[in-house]
Amino acid sequence: MSRLVMKFGGTSVANIERIRNVARHVARERKAGFDVAVIVSAMSGKTNELVGWCREAAKLYDAREYDAVVSSGEQVTAGLLALVLQDAGIPARSWQGWQVPILTSDSHGSARILDIDGSAIIKGFEARGEVAVISGFQGVNKDTGRIATLGRGGSDTSAVAIAAAIKADRCDIYTDVDGVYTTDPRIVPKARRLDRVAFEEMLEMASLGAKVLQVRSVELAMVHKVKTFVRSSFDDPENPQPGTLICDEEDIVEQQVVTGIAFSRDEAQVTLRQVADHPGVAAAIFMPLAEANINVDMIIQVASEDAGSTDMTFTVPAADFERTKAILLKAQPQIGFASLHGANDVVKISAIGVGMRSHAGVAARAFKALAEKGINIRAITTSEIKFSVLIEAAYTELAVRTLHSLYGLDKA
Amino acid sequence: MSRLVMKFGGTSVANIERIRNVARHVARERKAGFDVAVIVSAMSGKTNELVGWCREAAKLYDAREYDAVVSSGEQVTAGLLALVLQDAGIPARSWQGWQVPILTSDSHGSARILDIDGSAIIKGFEARGEVAVISGFQGVNKDTGRIATLGRGGSDTSAVAIAAAIKADRCDIYTDVDGVYTTDPRIVPKARRLDRVAFEEMLEMASLGAKVLQVRSVELAMVHKVKTFVRSSFDDPENPQPGTLICDEEDIVEQQVVTGIAFSRDEAQVTLRQVADHPGVAAAIFMPLAEANINVDMIIQVASEDAGSTDMTFTVPAADFERTKAILLKAQPQIGFASLHGANDVVKISAIGVGMRSHAGVAARAFKALAEKGINIRAITTSEIKFSVLIEAAYTELAVRTLHSLYGLDKA
Repeated sequence: MSRLVMKFGGTSVANIERIRNVARHVARERKAGFDVAVIVSAMSGKTNELVGWCREAAKLYDAREYDAVVSSGEQVTAGLLALVLQDAGIPARSWQGWQVPILTSDSHGSARILDIDGSAIIKGFEARGEVAVISGFQGVNKDTGRIATLGRGGSDTSAVAIAAAIKADRCDIYTDVDGVYTTDPRIVPKARRLDRVAFEEMLEMASLGAKVLQVRSVELAMVHKVKTFVRSSFDDPENPQPGTLICDEEDIVEQQVVTGIAFSRDEAQVTLRQVADHPGVAAAIFMPLAEANINVDMIIQVASEDAGSTDMTFTVPAADFERTKAILLKAQPQIGFASLHGANDVVKISAIGVGMRSHAGVAARAFKALAEKGINIRAITTSEIKFSVLIEAAYTELAVRTLHSLYGLDKA
Repeated sequence: MSRLVMKFGGTSVANIERIRNVARHVARERKAGFDVAVIVSAMSGKTNELVGWCREAAKLYDAREYDAVVSSGEQVTAGLLALVLQDAGIPARSWQGWQVPILTSDSHGSARILDIDGSAIIKGFEARGEVAVISGFQGVNKDTGRIATLGRGGSDTSAVAIAAAIKADRCDIYTDVDGVYTTDPRIVPKARRLDRVAFEEMLEMASLGAKVLQVRSVELAMVHKVKTFVRSSFDDPENPQPGTLICDEEDIVEQQVVTGIAFSRDEAQVTLRQVADHPGVAAAIFMPLAEANINVDMIIQVASEDAGSTDMTFTVPAADFERTKAILLKAQPQIGFASLHGANDVVKISAIGVGMRSHAGVAARAFKALAEKGINIRAITTSEIKFSVLIEAAYTELAVRTLHSLYGLDKA
């Protein structure tokens, strides 16, 4: 029989009533002839409660104990969905990460899946016609046998990895939106739902601020060629919409130049003025940040007014802003700069599309359009299939709408 | 080094503040030179929440899934206590039942512990000076590898079993009372805390309604000769009281005839009138109840006024009262009785003491004292070290106080 993986997030399993609704979606797919593995998140709010306790217990908490505590949320949901499925007459059982097993690296709190043995789940399909309800977000440390979690949003990754392990035909990620949009519909009412998005585009969108899928789940789907749908758990279970298919570029017939506009408010900008312009100065700035595990994104270097020195501007995640400033001020004697300026009222706006590969001047049109609206660009980065601009946060909506229209993404 | 098991119940770990208090008790014992294994229950209220969800999910729930859901409560507490201990500078790690492992039978929801491999925990003591924080109430099904719970109060059993497995010097059961009392102090203000109770007495007290320890934990302690203390987690961690020692009869110097008075309101009385008095009638009554897993306790048979027939009175757990009536009425043609009468406004009051073995007439004094207070005895059972009377529930307090004074248990 064909196999299907279905993943349901926290809002889709927030209470027993919603879990019953999930069971209806599962029942439909079983009726359609699929062996089904369901991956579930914790009931919404539960993970935050558990994380809150960990923080209250210890400021610098042991990630292995954090994982033991936090993974319990998914354990509960898996058991409850199995109960609800059984109650609806559908054979089902729950699987914890260590029971499957889903083997992970030892980076607790953000572990990577190393290997999944899908044989026990497949045996459940074949011997007992059983739906496998699998706790998302968790696995077991290959070396120590301790519970390891995959980091926030990790259940998406669990789902895609399980789909690859059991060679599922499809992986359906059910969420509270009905697919992937050209941009956030709350900001641009004319945003359109996309029928298809290329893996590469989805990867950029997820990396650049679209919250619909975890980045690593998209990487995995791309590597293992897992046909992945993003769709709504709030559709009528008897008559659902197909959602958005994440697929190979070749499977997208009518390719747009730009597929979507993403934005991220989680950015902060740091500028060092009058940095001594000598070899090794970039290393002096960025090595201590790398050692502190701070991701530096956009970097711009311009000659300063003062000869023999440059100004260096770059962005870091907003959450790391204060730490970044502290580290750099501490290293000021080694680096050698006159002053440090920072801003966290900035936003990074990105346009993504595999069509950029074959079209020149895509970004230039954006710069012009933004300039016409009086929006000052503070930094730019580009790659093969996307470009990003850093602007003042107050212009977020205006800039997103401008680019959305510019590239013909508005709904008719 | 000497080893110690400490067990903390739900109210002792109800929030992070109380868990910090638990850590102080652990710190004291470590300072005193013990390697410590701590067994924890779920935070109070959590198990009820989880059980409520299971019931909402499915009326007739799969005990295996119930166990997966409900065991998560202890998992959370174990991780949190490990975090709090680490935060206080004490090396610690959490152990789930399947990690120890604690192997159980397959009777999910009320599994029996079959075997515990204490070697990993002992290695943690010896190699890393690590406190082992173990989730109570749970183990792993020896055959299927699924999580199995031990039934309500199972954490006491976990604690005693772990103590036996790691050959602990002592097992301290911390609770919200400071020991075992001669009777419930809420009913008899003159109740006294006992310094020592014999295993056999504690077993009877637990079976007969004293809620301080789970029956099976006392059985285990008795079989494995685990020196067990019942003590308070709300004592000053720097200067705690010793609590009550559960120990061998020989270790109790000054033996009382009666050690304690227990009472249980979870009883219901059933009377069948004019039962045909022929061989096999008792089997006809009690076999169907046994098949329905209903525990019949006190049984009295008296000749009825109608010659050739008897009246049969017995007690069942109050929770099984309705089922009992339904089963008997269905079997009325086979049994042959005129009418069924039932009452659940009854209470069973018991006096317990190993001294009864060597003293005659202990129960007779009680019958006289109760009669003098105008309390009607509906049924009596006796065994070597206890006797119980069934009386109308309205007389509970009066009867308990009467017996408590009668046997010299009142505080000076």
